[in-house]
Amino acid sequence: MKALKLGMVGGGQGAFIGGVHRMAARLDGRWELVAGALSSHPARAEASAKELGLDPKRSYQSYAEMAVQEAARADGIDAVAIVTPNYMHAGPAIAFLEAGIHVICDKPLAATSEQAQLIDAAVRASKAHFILTHNYTGYPVIRQARKLVENGELGEIRVIQAEYAQDWLSEAADNKQADWRVNPEKSGAGAIGDIGTHALNLASFVSGLQPQALCADLHSFVDGRRVDDNAHIMLRFEKGAKGMLWASQVAVGCENTLTLRIYGEKAGLEWQQENPNQLSFTRFGQAKQLLTRGGAGFGETAGDWTRIPPGHPEGYLEGFATLYSDAADLISGVGAGELLPNLDAGLAGMWFIQACQESSEQGAVWLSRAGD
Amino acid sequence: MKALKLGMVGGGQGAFIGGVHRMAARLDGRWELVAGALSSHPARAEASAKELGLDPKRSYQSYAEMAVQEAARADGIDAVAIVTPNYMHAGPAIAFLEAGIHVICDKPLAATSEQAQLIDAAVRASKAHFILTHNYTGYPVIRQARKLVENGELGEIRVIQAEYAQDWLSEAADNKQADWRVNPEKSGAGAIGDIGTHALNLASFVSGLQPQALCADLHSFVDGRRVDDNAHIMLRFEKGAKGMLWASQVAVGCENTLTLRIYGEKAGLEWQQENPNQLSFTRFGQAKQLLTRGGAGFGETAGDWTRIPPGHPEGYLEGFATLYSDAADLISGVGAGELLPNLDAGLAGMWFIQACQESSEQGAVWLSRAGD
Amino acid sequence: MKALKLGMVGGGQGAFIGGVHRMAARLDGRWELVAGALSSHPARAEASAKELGLDPKRSYQSYAEMAVQEAARADGIDAVAIVTPNYMHAGPAIAFLEAGIHVICDKPLAATSEQAQLIDAAVRASKAHFILTHNYTGYPVIRQARKLVENGELGEIRVIQAEYAQDWLSEAADNKQADWRVNPEKSGAGAIGDIGTHALNLASFVSGLQPQALCADLHSFVDGRRVDDNAHIMLRFEKGAKGMLWASQVAVGCENTLTLRIYGEKAGLEWQQENPNQLSFTRFGQAKQLLTRGGAGFGETAGDWTRIPPGHPEGYLEGFATLYSDAADLISGVGAGELLPNLDAGLAGMWFIQACQESSEQGAVWLSRAGD
Amino acid sequence: MKALKLGMVGGGQGAFIGGVHRMAARLDGRWELVAGALSSHPARAEASAKELGLDPKRSYQSYAEMAVQEAARADGIDAVAIVTPNYMHAGPAIAFLEAGIHVICDKPLAATSEQAQLIDAAVRASKAHFILTHNYTGYPVIRQARKLVENGELGEIRVIQAEYAQDWLSEAADNKQADWRVNPEKSGAGAIGDIGTHALNLASFVSGLQPQALCADLHSFVDGRRVDDNAHIMLRFEKGAKGMLWASQVAVGCENTLTLRIYGEKAGLEWQQENPNQLSFTRFGQAKQLLTRGGAGFGETAGDWTRIPPGHPEGYLEGFATLYSDAADLISGVGAGELLPNLDAGLAGMWFIQACQESSEQGAVWLSRAGD
Repeated sequence: MKALKLGMVGGGQGAFIGGVHRMAARLDGRWELVAGALSSHPARAEASAKELGLDPKRSYQSYAEMAVQEAARADGIDAVAIVTPNYMHAGPAIAFLEAGIHVICDKPLAATSEQAQLIDAAVRASKAHFILTHNYTGYPVIRQARKLVENGELGEIRVIQAEYAQDWLSEAADNKQADWRVNPEKSGAGAIGDIGTHALNLASFVSGLQPQALCADLHSFVDGRRVDDNAHIMLRFEKGAKGMLWASQVAVGCENTLTLRIYGEKAGLEWQQENPNQLSFTRFGQAKQLLTRGGAGFGETAGDWTRIPPGHPEGYLEGFATLYSDAADLISGVGAGELLPNLDAGLAGMWFIQACQESSEQGAVWLSRAGD
Repeated sequence: MKALKLGMVGGGQGAFIGGVHRMAARLDGRWELVAGALSSHPARAEASAKELGLDPKRSYQSYAEMAVQEAARADGIDAVAIVTPNYMHAGPAIAFLEAGIHVICDKPLAATSEQAQLIDAAVRASKAHFILTHNYTGYPVIRQARKLVENGELGEIRVIQAEYAQDWLSEAADNKQADWRVNPEKSGAGAIGDIGTHALNLASFVSGLQPQALCADLHSFVDGRRVDDNAHIMLRFEKGAKGMLWASQVAVGCENTLTLRIYGEKAGLEWQQENPNQLSFTRFGQAKQLLTRGGAGFGETAGDWTRIPPGHPEGYLEGFATLYSDAADLISGVGAGELLPNLDAGLAGMWFIQACQESSEQGAVWLSRAGD
Repeated sequence: MKALKLGMVGGGQGAFIGGVHRMAARLDGRWELVAGALSSHPARAEASAKELGLDPKRSYQSYAEMAVQEAARADGIDAVAIVTPNYMHAGPAIAFLEAGIHVICDKPLAATSEQAQLIDAAVRASKAHFILTHNYTGYPVIRQARKLVENGELGEIRVIQAEYAQDWLSEAADNKQADWRVNPEKSGAGAIGDIGTHALNLASFVSGLQPQALCADLHSFVDGRRVDDNAHIMLRFEKGAKGMLWASQVAVGCENTLTLRIYGEKAGLEWQQENPNQLSFTRFGQAKQLLTRGGAGFGETAGDWTRIPPGHPEGYLEGFATLYSDAADLISGVGAGELLPNLDAGLAGMWFIQACQESSEQGAVWLSRAGD
Repeated sequence: MKALKLGMVGGGQGAFIGGVHRMAARLDGRWELVAGALSSHPARAEASAKELGLDPKRSYQSYAEMAVQEAARADGIDAVAIVTPNYMHAGPAIAFLEAGIHVICDKPLAATSEQAQLIDAAVRASKAHFILTHNYTGYPVIRQARKLVENGELGEIRVIQAEYAQDWLSEAADNKQADWRVNPEKSGAGAIGDIGTHALNLASFVSGLQPQALCADLHSFVDGRRVDDNAHIMLRFEKGAKGMLWASQVAVGCENTLTLRIYGEKAGLEWQQENPNQLSFTRFGQAKQLLTRGGAGFGETAGDWTRIPPGHPEGYLEGFATLYSDAADLISGVGAGELLPNLDAGLAGMWFIQACQESSEQGAVWLSRAGD
């Protein structure tokens, strides 16, 4: 099985998520990084490319050049990973989509709805695939949870509680990761964009339900911060389910506490990202079960999406890697990618961000999703 | 130290909370149950009194008679425990207050605001004390958490997340406990009254902050149910703190999951009622600490409000018993009862219930607390 | 239901376990403390009796006098609780047994095998009951675990891992609780007697298996300590089961960490005293279940031995209280006391202590239980 | 940075640990798999090589041929991973060491002491490095724990409790993984070799202490099994520390429960492999701390050996990968490999296996390590 060829936009030295994408792409041996426009700073781009062992000729000064040249090569990249700050997603995404090169883009989709619409149009016009790395959907236990819901094990869903709490922005921060995230021009939003969209995506991925309306109370607790660092949101989902979503980057003691709880007529489930190999599952009137990744509780297909046996913990990178393997399957024509987050997930996230902002600005009122 | 004399209204055979009050009153040897109007059914009252070893002469047919006669006795009761359904709190509370007998009343204060106002007036007119058994405030770790906040360990409070989830009403239930709780005439409310008030009370007790406004989305998921069984609430507290409160009786897999999380500028704390001997406490930028009941983490006064050493778990009954011991201290003039939930707590709970109902009826809009 | 009358030997001011026995006796309203020889120091005895509200005439200078006089009273005590240090169990136990008064004695049985034999003889010669407060057998979840084993849910038992770890004696201690425990003349042994016997008793109680041989490596880590503060023990039980037992009072970070794990052919179970309301139970090839006190997982008799519903934690005192209630049932002729630890449990503990000491002195060799 | 070239012996289709080594080698991009003798079955070797994208010329029929030919190539492999069953370690290890090719060998070192001695001699005679994949030493939190001990945070070590419990061999198994592991000719031992050596290695790695004597009670609970499936072991370590080690493959409910607890004069630590991103650490007389991978509790060098921030769980493969990255550093001359398990660790494990077997055969008696 030959590895596919990957290019990368962003992810130069000092970046965080670029390295994650590279490890995720490497883990299963399905991808080989061969090209990049790794930084808008030429010197950093060059040094980063050297460090990664790229052919200097395929270390580009701009994504635009990279899109054109890679499309022209016989051995050009199969896909590009876009790992730039939010406001720099649209440019490269559109360039590569137009060049017919598949796009694997970090989330959220964009910094503004205008940018999102441009991406939307480009995806519709292109034969290339567009994948958004809502990576938490790659955890095997999350995918098994989705199957439980699909199979009707919970009955009709009543309540969805989603949370994503961190504490690293509890004080005014001063580092490369924080800088663009708290700059509304670059990020488009604070906690709701950076982590809230993950929580919403996960809730919809597992429950199969999209939000129809929300009421959001956003706040910036740190003096001078121009984006939200705490978001309290009430949600109404399809089919009558109700939910709450809390996203915070000032919750002291929370490292990366993404939690999903779903309660239905017949059963309930609870999951925490920091202990991702386990799902708490309770049928009404029965004992609580701890279902483990690959373990007996998930039945005959328990091993799906896992690499190693139960009790050998898989983590964040493995979940992320599953998106890259799924992408390889999709591009190779082996799989249909039905579990891969795509443009729709991105647009749902953009609606979420903007509805939260509008709701909050109007005093935390209810807003419905257009068309609903 | 002579035990004080306790009477009880309600709590006859088949009741739940009456037995809890009796065990709580007995544990520390500070109270002796000597009189009761244990049931409105004379036969059940008599049988219950016999089972409890009451002098038949002090097993009364009505609370009114009991109040009058006990007040007249030289060895009359020092206090009465009122453990009837919500709509039957006001009558006995007023009768005993008027008789100058201290009242220990189960929560919430009443089924309606009219009833609450009558109790309010009676408390103001009486020299007797009025204590409301928001029993979770009796857990030693909760009281230590309150001290941490008071001592400024968290800095200014930013976020308060309170939850109280159960699953026993996930289906239409048919038992004595459920019957009156889902009857709006008897309970006044569903989950928000029965358990939501506990969560709010706990949040205010530990944080020292009262809610100023709320926005509530109440729902009944079980067909035909006439009270809320799930409540999603956003809160704004004094001093700029924001919060969420979730109360549910249809969260399958949750037995009695009361959770409080408070995040401040400098530190955060997390507590779960089902594991009540432990508090998770994190100072920003430091390792998470697990502070245990009576353990070193709470400093020199760690042993306050505990009976047995760290590692020997105290539970629900011990926390409840602490309210009874505090009440004995207060009545005996040994203590000031400053930690005992009182009428103010009851009125805060009544505002909460009614504001939730009004907010939800109006489509989940924000309502402020009068006077704020 | 009239309360039984209880006397107490030991348990004066400054003692720990006496207060525990009193709270346990009070909780369910089945006992009334009416007499005591609370201390060998007359002044402390008197002050203690006053504090507890005893009739001064029934506050005795010696247990011998108390046994005689209480036996002679028409309203004499039904039972005596012996809560003195180990070396002072035999005297009062024999005196009350000879007086025909039921004995509830703290563990271990005695400080020496000679004392144990004298108690043994007295129990055989008396019609009175002898109960040893291995209180951890009173936890509802432990009793349910025993039922699971009895019902064959685990199949044949293979492995038993029992641990009891504390850290309070990690340094040379200087307090009333520590003083007699580290004095071999008063305690007879260190960690193996004080806590190791609890772990062994619990293992046998749940598994239904007695130890047949052991190999023990005892050690005192604290300079100058004359009793063991750490014990490593390998065990062979009846029916081919094998086990390990670790008892330590120098395990820094362990408050009162009593843990029992039993693995059989068909299933395994795990329990920790510090979270006593939950049992982890796994059938081979199935998902792990968390069975909760009173919860659905224990079937129709889940509520046995509980006072309050699932999710309302019961603790150490409730488990202890169950022994007192069982004792009341036994003495009242209501129950047979088949779950109450008795002389046999005490003798098993004495064998354990002495075999551990002998084994260790001989270099940690295997010793069998006489008769096996 | 150019990737090093890796060969592999064993690890063909149907194998488990070979795939793990490959993912571990890939994760950090430091290795490229270019050659293999993947199976002793030619057809399987060929199919496996094709699946992995190896150049057919470098898919060898035997490890001997591979060692010779790769050593002769200008672009020959830098190291070989040996992932065969235990009895097949010595042959390839010696062949590649003699060829001057670095060896990364799965554990335990060998199936017999004769084989181990041959490897020992080959390592001494070769300039090539020999690395044994006791992979659990690669977990960042384990390495931080080792630093805590080295830095004297625990004071003198007193007690070491190590456990490795699984349940997959609770019944007679019938699969490729089980087949050779329960065949004493191929494995050399049962649970003690397969997992017990991991537990011992981890205990010594973190504590810095080697065992000096042991007393082992091995047993096979499953009918007809010819190797131990449960091992109870008492240990005496250097400097007066004492320990217990439990290894079991019949502990129903345990997936891969490797646990290490170390208690010293001043502090104690506890770690569980199934939740590997967290270390419980308690200083005597202070609150328990939960130190997290990369988190504040580990100080300025908290990020050592981690790839992603706290709260983003790393797992088994990441820990394994760290050994491969360390090996790359060592071979590249960047690092000294001081944390890499080597021949000494292998010989310690062989002593452990054989001493356990001899001790148990003699009735579970104490045996000292030669020279101690």
